[in-house]
Amino acid sequence: MKLATVLSLAVAVSAYCCVPPVKPAGPEGHAHTFNFDYEGETGPLNWHHIDRDNSQCAHGKHQSPIDISSNSVTIAPRGSVRINIPKASTAKLENLGSGLEVVLTNGSLTTPNGNYQLAQFHWHTPSEHRISAQHSPMEAHFVFKDAASRIAVVGFLIELSETGSSTCLFDSIFSLTDAVYHPGEYVHTGPLDFTEVNHHLDLNPPYQYSGSLTTPPCTEGVSWYVSSEPMLLSVRSYNKAKRLLKFNARYIQNTLGAENLLQVAED
Amino acid sequence: MKLATVLSLAVAVSAYCCVPPVKPAGPEGHAHTFNFDYEGETGPLNWHHIDRDNSQCAHGKHQSPIDISSNSVTIAPRGSVRINIPKASTAKLENLGSGLEVVLTNGSLTTPNGNYQLAQFHWHTPSEHRISAQHSPMEAHFVFKDAASRIAVVGFLIELSETGSSTCLFDSIFSLTDAVYHPGEYVHTGPLDFTEVNHHLDLNPPYQYSGSLTTPPCTEGVSWYVSSEPMLLSVRSYNKAKRLLKFNARYIQNTLGAENLLQVAED
Repeated sequence: MKLATVLSLAVAVSAYCCVPPVKPAGPEGHAHTFNFDYEGETGPLNWHHIDRDNSQCAHGKHQSPIDISSNSVTIAPRGSVRINIPKASTAKLENLGSGLEVVLTNGSLTTPNGNYQLAQFHWHTPSEHRISAQHSPMEAHFVFKDAASRIAVVGFLIELSETGSSTCLFDSIFSLTDAVYHPGEYVHTGPLDFTEVNHHLDLNPPYQYSGSLTTPPCTEGVSWYVSSEPMLLSVRSYNKAKRLLKFNARYIQNTLGAENLLQVAED
Repeated sequence: MKLATVLSLAVAVSAYCCVPPVKPAGPEGHAHTFNFDYEGETGPLNWHHIDRDNSQCAHGKHQSPIDISSNSVTIAPRGSVRINIPKASTAKLENLGSGLEVVLTNGSLTTPNGNYQLAQFHWHTPSEHRISAQHSPMEAHFVFKDAASRIAVVGFLIELSETGSSTCLFDSIFSLTDAVYHPGEYVHTGPLDFTEVNHHLDLNPPYQYSGSLTTPPCTEGVSWYVSSEPMLLSVRSYNKAKRLLKFNARYIQNTLGAENLLQVAED
């Protein structure tokens, strides 16, 4: 076998070996899509004009995403913030137009401020948060709610691996993107294993701060936990996901407590 | 030899085999840096307040970058736009704070509107232009000027290769990023070969439109030529460059001729 053949085989294996079997893929029906986008007059600079409920997007002073380098952001004590999402036999994968979302409610988040139940998880590309001005090519958001509908989000920055290694959970889901390529399509996945996600947060205590939803209506009072170390993704999965996600990251907001950048721009 | 060893060797070779010898690396002195940035009150939403010369950044109506999907953008006839940059024995590589720039004046751009001389080239990550709402992880800008100081820029969108193949010119330059890691540092490169860049534009006629500089003072009347097919980069070089470039892309502007998005946001 020629080296080139060994190499291409090895790369193919390393990129896919961790993908569990998935259900036959093809859109199964239509999901809800949103009226906002990431460019022009439906983009982030104008979200506050799309709907009057979105006024926080222009006037809030504790908006997300932020650059994680300010004094308002601290690292949580090790073990104080824990995700526990058991294996799922299936979950609904939806193309929302503004992004790709997995609806799954069987999972929990424990924090010093309270306990939350998983609602969904989704991705942004490029990343929304930055660490010391550095962005990542992608970011995953696991969204949790408590009994009073308060929201906590765990963000995982995702860097690209130079060796072909990858996060199996993400490979597994992004292998289904062709089946939900068009906004509004959905499909049910095969089994999903969250061991890597649970484990990653245990090993890498997150940055914590109080911010907002990064999409309309930009509601504040969201408890953010952003993992201090990135997860890894193969280029193959990244390229597949990016073709669908396009560009779906809100621009970085002003320092927590400071005037909204859109207001600053007006003055 | 174990497969894992063959693989890591092969990946290392494929990522670096095209890098020509470079001069011993280490900062040689201090270059000029800029007073703008890509977040907070020195970021794109506020560039017009940093200096009164930057008013176009908020009030211009033909600003760059744009999403290349409008009727104002056409593909240039094949062969009508040509880059010719001969091999260079060395060039000055500078860390400007806002990005990484190679100063090189030996090269030309031929277009139906006139001929231009190379002034410098630099990179943005993620890409500034989008094609049908899709961004790329990086974009290279080759900046040319004519005798009357009119500006033409050739943009190459850069996608990440899944096989480890790469654009040798970029690998070669990004292998020097450690030597210019801090804003203001510069170094002289070893020999640079532009065959791939010249050839890529010959094979892939660019999109063309009239826009602006994407950095302050956001001057309009810039002739843009954006290659219709991406160039490829290895993840290794991408990660190396991204660590230095951080996030240095202006947010996408409104459709050509339409009111500036910052003005729309104010209304």
